[in-house]
Amino acid sequence: MAFFKNKEILQELGFGTKNYSTKVRFLNTDGSVNVKRRGLGLLRNLDIFHWLISTSALTLNFVILIWYVLINSVFAGIYYWIGPEHFGGLDVPAGDTIKEFSALFFFSAQTITTLGYGHVYPIGELASTAASVESLLGLLSFAVATGILYGRFSRPKAHILYSNNLLISPYREGKAIMFRLVNKKQSELIETEVKVSVTFINATSNKREFYNLKLEIEKINFLPFSWTVVHPLNEESPIAMYNLSDYESMDFEFLVLFKAINDTVSQNVYSRYSYKHERILENARFLPLEQSVDKKGRVMIAVNEVSRFETLN
Amino acid sequence: MAFFKNKEILQELGFGTKNYSTKVRFLNTDGSVNVKRRGLGLLRNLDIFHWLISTSALTLNFVILIWYVLINSVFAGIYYWIGPEHFGGLDVPAGDTIKEFSALFFFSAQTITTLGYGHVYPIGELASTAASVESLLGLLSFAVATGILYGRFSRPKAHILYSNNLLISPYREGKAIMFRLVNKKQSELIETEVKVSVTFINATSNKREFYNLKLEIEKINFLPFSWTVVHPLNEESPIAMYNLSDYESMDFEFLVLFKAINDTVSQNVYSRYSYKHERILENARFLPLEQSVDKKGRVMIAVNEVSRFETLN
Amino acid sequence: MAFFKNKEILQELGFGTKNYSTKVRFLNTDGSVNVKRRGLGLLRNLDIFHWLISTSALTLNFVILIWYVLINSVFAGIYYWIGPEHFGGLDVPAGDTIKEFSALFFFSAQTITTLGYGHVYPIGELASTAASVESLLGLLSFAVATGILYGRFSRPKAHILYSNNLLISPYREGKAIMFRLVNKKQSELIETEVKVSVTFINATSNKREFYNLKLEIEKINFLPFSWTVVHPLNEESPIAMYNLSDYESMDFEFLVLFKAINDTVSQNVYSRYSYKHERILENARFLPLEQSVDKKGRVMIAVNEVSRFETLN
Amino acid sequence: MAFFKNKEILQELGFGTKNYSTKVRFLNTDGSVNVKRRGLGLLRNLDIFHWLISTSALTLNFVILIWYVLINSVFAGIYYWIGPEHFGGLDVPAGDTIKEFSALFFFSAQTITTLGYGHVYPIGELASTAASVESLLGLLSFAVATGILYGRFSRPKAHILYSNNLLISPYREGKAIMFRLVNKKQSELIETEVKVSVTFINATSNKREFYNLKLEIEKINFLPFSWTVVHPLNEESPIAMYNLSDYESMDFEFLVLFKAINDTVSQNVYSRYSYKHERILENARFLPLEQSVDKKGRVMIAVNEVSRFETLN
Repeated sequence: MAFFKNKEILQELGFGTKNYSTKVRFLNTDGSVNVKRRGLGLLRNLDIFHWLISTSALTLNFVILIWYVLINSVFAGIYYWIGPEHFGGLDVPAGDTIKEFSALFFFSAQTITTLGYGHVYPIGELASTAASVESLLGLLSFAVATGILYGRFSRPKAHILYSNNLLISPYREGKAIMFRLVNKKQSELIETEVKVSVTFINATSNKREFYNLKLEIEKINFLPFSWTVVHPLNEESPIAMYNLSDYESMDFEFLVLFKAINDTVSQNVYSRYSYKHERILENARFLPLEQSVDKKGRVMIAVNEVSRFETLN
Repeated sequence: MAFFKNKEILQELGFGTKNYSTKVRFLNTDGSVNVKRRGLGLLRNLDIFHWLISTSALTLNFVILIWYVLINSVFAGIYYWIGPEHFGGLDVPAGDTIKEFSALFFFSAQTITTLGYGHVYPIGELASTAASVESLLGLLSFAVATGILYGRFSRPKAHILYSNNLLISPYREGKAIMFRLVNKKQSELIETEVKVSVTFINATSNKREFYNLKLEIEKINFLPFSWTVVHPLNEESPIAMYNLSDYESMDFEFLVLFKAINDTVSQNVYSRYSYKHERILENARFLPLEQSVDKKGRVMIAVNEVSRFETLN
Repeated sequence: MAFFKNKEILQELGFGTKNYSTKVRFLNTDGSVNVKRRGLGLLRNLDIFHWLISTSALTLNFVILIWYVLINSVFAGIYYWIGPEHFGGLDVPAGDTIKEFSALFFFSAQTITTLGYGHVYPIGELASTAASVESLLGLLSFAVATGILYGRFSRPKAHILYSNNLLISPYREGKAIMFRLVNKKQSELIETEVKVSVTFINATSNKREFYNLKLEIEKINFLPFSWTVVHPLNEESPIAMYNLSDYESMDFEFLVLFKAINDTVSQNVYSRYSYKHERILENARFLPLEQSVDKKGRVMIAVNEVSRFETLN
Repeated sequence: MAFFKNKEILQELGFGTKNYSTKVRFLNTDGSVNVKRRGLGLLRNLDIFHWLISTSALTLNFVILIWYVLINSVFAGIYYWIGPEHFGGLDVPAGDTIKEFSALFFFSAQTITTLGYGHVYPIGELASTAASVESLLGLLSFAVATGILYGRFSRPKAHILYSNNLLISPYREGKAIMFRLVNKKQSELIETEVKVSVTFINATSNKREFYNLKLEIEKINFLPFSWTVVHPLNEESPIAMYNLSDYESMDFEFLVLFKAINDTVSQNVYSRYSYKHERILENARFLPLEQSVDKKGRVMIAVNEVSRFETLN
């Protein structure tokens, strides 16, 4: 990775230049990077906040529930060790361990949530101290939960729908590589920017190479409609000499980085995508998205038609 | 949308190039984009956080209230199903369904808010478990509410007042297009930037075209006073050959994107505006805003005069 | 304000070009803009969140206390109107209005904070409904309070100490305008940037003019020590022909905009400052800040010496 | 510090130009700046929020616990001063100061956390007022705690692992300075940027000088693998004439500023590093990191090999 060639369009992407024996994909179609870092041990790789705000809602709910049951069990154990006689209003037969533990478990739940009905209450210093600590812990835990939930909701995301295919279409006197994207959500994106790179295995050097592709237009102010991203296959293009069959044999991958500002939260949002040869078509071009003006004078756009194309002969 | 012309000032705005039979407006005067995306189904278009932080305060309060009544009704139902006899202190005639349900509804409200007076309290594992879950749910709900309310309050907005009219005014030896803007709020805006685009239907090609307009000054450090944005109608301008009657027949729209940093929260803020031909005037120029120095040495500026102009003959 | 001159260094700062009969200051030394916007009515100028996060801690505490007393008084009134007999455990002589109201006031406080001791509790639908609404209101209020307090604490600020004086010092073969700044806090600032503008009344046109001043260095990567900002008074400078007495007669003001990234929160921070003629000195130069290396090998810097200079003869 | 040389690559870093008698380090290897600012008094240097969100978790927990014990002691004192007879349900022998104080301490804990079991409750205006104030204080405190915990968790950090050594390696026809870095965490970094500066004591002037070093590649779009940062020691380099023994005698330090966008939170993250002569090696070059493709088709990278190099003869 210490080798860089002195050609302006060549780009070190942080990917290695190694030619793997099997074909690989660098970006998955959901935009995640197809790389696993290892060698630092589990703990040093772990980023709990990152995981909690990016995991699924179902997993997060499960984690919270498990934590709730565990913490209450621990405190129920502590209260039981202190002794059920130090709690007023328990109202269970003395000596019935299961019933006592269960009642203390619910007392714990009422304490950690600061609910505090008070039909059960601590008696004496030890029980009171334990309950005081638990309610403090509860408040801090819910402070953390507030942060995580806010982090999840406010996390800015770009919901971009990319065309299924990347097309090699007629363009002026020659050809161009084109794909199309739309914003799926009603929130507006402004100052949108696209960067496209390509990677393939150079047949001569047998090393993987990376190039930035020059686009007709790299930045637009608004994105209310679709955007067809165009890289002309002219003399400036580093891939003008290759055709679709080369794309397969040289393990081509087109890497897309999308950047914009979400107008609702005024924050940068990003999206990534990639096209491998099986999604690339020759002699085809995109068909316009259906657009109409409704009764209120609004322009209607059918975003689900982003992939629509026609084959040329 | 796959067609771009090779002219530097032409700009693909993410708007289509289609010529609609009826005249359309791309940006509303409140800055919202006059476009509705459809075709993905209701759910995939929905962005709940975005909606909750951008809806009106009244709607949000209504949503919260509805949620509060619903969730308490659900839990009252659960408690009723468990059986009113599993709740101490209910103090209603046994068998009186309405009174029992109502008492359990208020017990639910006291539980979900973690109020927990305790004059009503759960008896037994089932009732205690349900109450534990409800109080956990309550805390998490209010964690979400905290996030939404913080998101609403801290959401950076530019409160820009634009002049009602866009004027074609004398400028040096020729003419220029001018509009004026002021910051409505006391919070300071810095590193302010304006970008102006124009769109119209090219009479020859019958296609919609978009151009960026070159401004005299695109960025200023502070915005304590008004700012008159100026696009000179000289040989560099793509619209120098058109006059006010062309503006109407060719369905002109001037699109304004304003960007600045709000000094209070150190975040980028944006504002959009648009002018159609009915708000454009020829042979007029803006009058200075009334300014004076008060007793404390502060410069007073009358921001409501941002639209004031005089007609020239 | 619709007049711009075609000279590259001239800058429209958003300040007017009017020549006020009395001398004015555009930026106060605390960095606030010395401008009051009026003409939109009190309500439209008001930005409550901005005010709450930028007001003093004392004022905020006072506002919270007032709100707490008011809201509890309102709910005590509602509870009193419902009737004290609908509250169990009040334990005050029936008919003693003051004692009843006072007890209901404290019941309200226990409800809005979701404290809910429960020695007083609502009886019947009306009282229970009012208490349910109050506890919901309480939770939402504290959600807002959480947002405001977080907004206050996390609000990124640059704590920059500027030299008291701006000096006209010998510089190479000529002279330069210099001032010095240090970071007062232990948190590190990176990617620091300074922009300096000057404004004065042009004696010929009797209009106020604004110029950006070219600095020797505009951006540095780190700011662990002091930074002496230098504008050389050479042939490129728009103010090379003026001397200190002109500064006074032409009402000069040097406007400083400082920008950096606070490394702790990774957010942009800003600071503003201004120098009027009474703080400008000729034939002086800054003395180095006292620096030493302590036993741990740390470089010690005396930031309070940022203004130290010596007079030259 | 008021002296700047007119050479483009020279850079004022905010560090002084003083030549300390002992050798100093400007950046520690953990990225912190090795500088202590003094002279403003303890209080003016203090930045509580900065400290609370950047201190260790252990310290923060300790601070919270101390605060909890202190505030409850203060309120227990107030309640004791009001008189234990103004609290119902205390259930301790009257006159037993320790038991009374202890019971009031736990009542305070139940009040400040808004737990409010209610087996102890205030009687009369004075006790009720104090409890009302305490519960308000409690809610505000936990609002602050929520902010601090959110600030800690969401604080964007770059977890970059740098190679232990900076190598002087063969590069094309000459040599280059190289070091290597990887992202330790699974969260992706995009738009990564590196800036490298060098500082040394000029043997002729005996003053410290700072230079920016030109890198082969300064910015890359993604960082899934390692990145070898390269500064060629060619005729453009300000340090091409120095060798490793000069590095020691002239007290060289290479300062690294790393900047990227964390894809999870869409925020800028920063990292700093520095190399002194004892970590610099000649005639060595980095060995590729072990990479392989696992069964799922993912590229595995061994980030712990970032420092691996071989010596050349």
